[in-house]
Amino acid sequence: MDAMTRVEQTLNAAVARGEAASCPPRLARAVRYAVFPGGARIRPRLALAVARACGDDAPRLSEAGAAAVELMHCASLVHDDLPCFDDAETRRGKPSVHKAFDERLAVLTGDALIVLAFQVLAQAAPAAPDRLPALVAIVGASAGLPSGISAGQAWECEPAVSLSDYHREKTGALFAAATMAGAAAAGFPHAGWRELGETLGEAYQVADDLRDVAGKAEDLGKPVGRDAALGRPSAAAELGVAGAMARLDGLVRQAIGAIPECPGRDDLRDLILLETKKFLPKGLAQSAA
Amino acid sequence: MDAMTRVEQTLNAAVARGEAASCPPRLARAVRYAVFPGGARIRPRLALAVARACGDDAPRLSEAGAAAVELMHCASLVHDDLPCFDDAETRRGKPSVHKAFDERLAVLTGDALIVLAFQVLAQAAPAAPDRLPALVAIVGASAGLPSGISAGQAWECEPAVSLSDYHREKTGALFAAATMAGAAAAGFPHAGWRELGETLGEAYQVADDLRDVAGKAEDLGKPVGRDAALGRPSAAAELGVAGAMARLDGLVRQAIGAIPECPGRDDLRDLILLETKKFLPKGLAQSAA
Repeated sequence: MDAMTRVEQTLNAAVARGEAASCPPRLARAVRYAVFPGGARIRPRLALAVARACGDDAPRLSEAGAAAVELMHCASLVHDDLPCFDDAETRRGKPSVHKAFDERLAVLTGDALIVLAFQVLAQAAPAAPDRLPALVAIVGASAGLPSGISAGQAWECEPAVSLSDYHREKTGALFAAATMAGAAAAGFPHAGWRELGETLGEAYQVADDLRDVAGKAEDLGKPVGRDAALGRPSAAAELGVAGAMARLDGLVRQAIGAIPECPGRDDLRDLILLETKKFLPKGLAQSAA
Repeated sequence: MDAMTRVEQTLNAAVARGEAASCPPRLARAVRYAVFPGGARIRPRLALAVARACGDDAPRLSEAGAAAVELMHCASLVHDDLPCFDDAETRRGKPSVHKAFDERLAVLTGDALIVLAFQVLAQAAPAAPDRLPALVAIVGASAGLPSGISAGQAWECEPAVSLSDYHREKTGALFAAATMAGAAAAGFPHAGWRELGETLGEAYQVADDLRDVAGKAEDLGKPVGRDAALGRPSAAAELGVAGAMARLDGLVRQAIGAIPECPGRDDLRDLILLETKKFLPKGLAQSAA
């Protein structure tokens, strides 16, 4: 079964468990709406790729670790979109949860998704119970204090802050959770997998900056890129397109160098090279080829 | 060490871990503000009482289970107080979190407290790793879907609902988590401990209704009770004060009868009788004596 199918099936089973007759129906619908259809599912696919490189000897637990990271990502999108934060009208091409339902349900959907991330881990624990403490700790650290995504988002509430740092932290926290959860689910020590995740997270962020700029360049009739409109720092703005692409290239090399020893190291390297090429918008990917 | 001290020390250590230099300072302050000073800590003290009745052979894990339930309770108070729900100005005699900080920090504080509940469990897991899956499952079920406190709160978002049912569910879910977590932390099968928790939760709810009414009777210069003002169903309003007190008495008897076999069954029974007397407002407790 390919990684994307494993991810979708695990997420579907997790969401379905909450849809019992006793669940308030609007909340059950909002939770499903927040998870499906998904984006590229890049974090859970990364978790499964690392698990496979480490032998993937407890596949249900690998899938649970991957799903937990994605559920936490979905939770953060729902809460970040709330009126008191980004007040975003749309997400993944459809109305955001608080627009499609209401603000109360958006708060509760985020809460329920955070809890669900841990429930998914506990349900899969019988596959290898001794690996659960590390998985709960990894997913918890990526989401909580002092440096998970809740903490990352809270930098918006400080009088003086480097927005650049906080955006990178928020992305890096979940990418690092993905690589570490993949290793931990397969019974490997996970600490050594942090750098790979953080570096890939930073590469993803630079590629995102480039997509924002390239979108503007490709279609001059549209308003300027979202980062510029929001006054957000951007590698593309700071370094120029060529400079940002060189930075991206350097980060991918650094990531490859950071892969710890494991049985499937070569395959994982090839997969990362293939996937990071997809980060770039089409026009830039062709010019980089 | 008495139960209250164990609860406060465990909560303090949990909150302190998030206060590293890398944590956004306002969020760190808001999290501490939401947890301290606490109320009666009735749920975590109940968890510790059950753990003690079951031998309490892994005290760090019992304390973690107790703290996790209380952190989840604190999280639900912060989110329930938000403007989109109760829009509460005060909580535990001081401004609510969104009033003292702001709405964004209240959302993130609730999120961080939910995550912290699971982090506390994982950190204590080395004491008895095989008990972690049950503890994560118990705390997760009390907070998530289909019938935890997120689900309970979401009944407010349904067009037709029994408010009475949902208030009892919200209270029952965390009381049941307290008794089951206490048993699971001590290595006992936890399912048999659900009824005790749910029944005590219902008793607490009836006592709360009585306090609301008694507050009115004792001080006629104040506005009518909060339940009546909010149009909330109340055992005291439905059954009258005498009827509600008879109901409370019946629930306490039912709870006592629901205590499963365990080494400290008699002590636990005595403690429950003592504590449930404290549920009542002073005037009523005297008339019931």
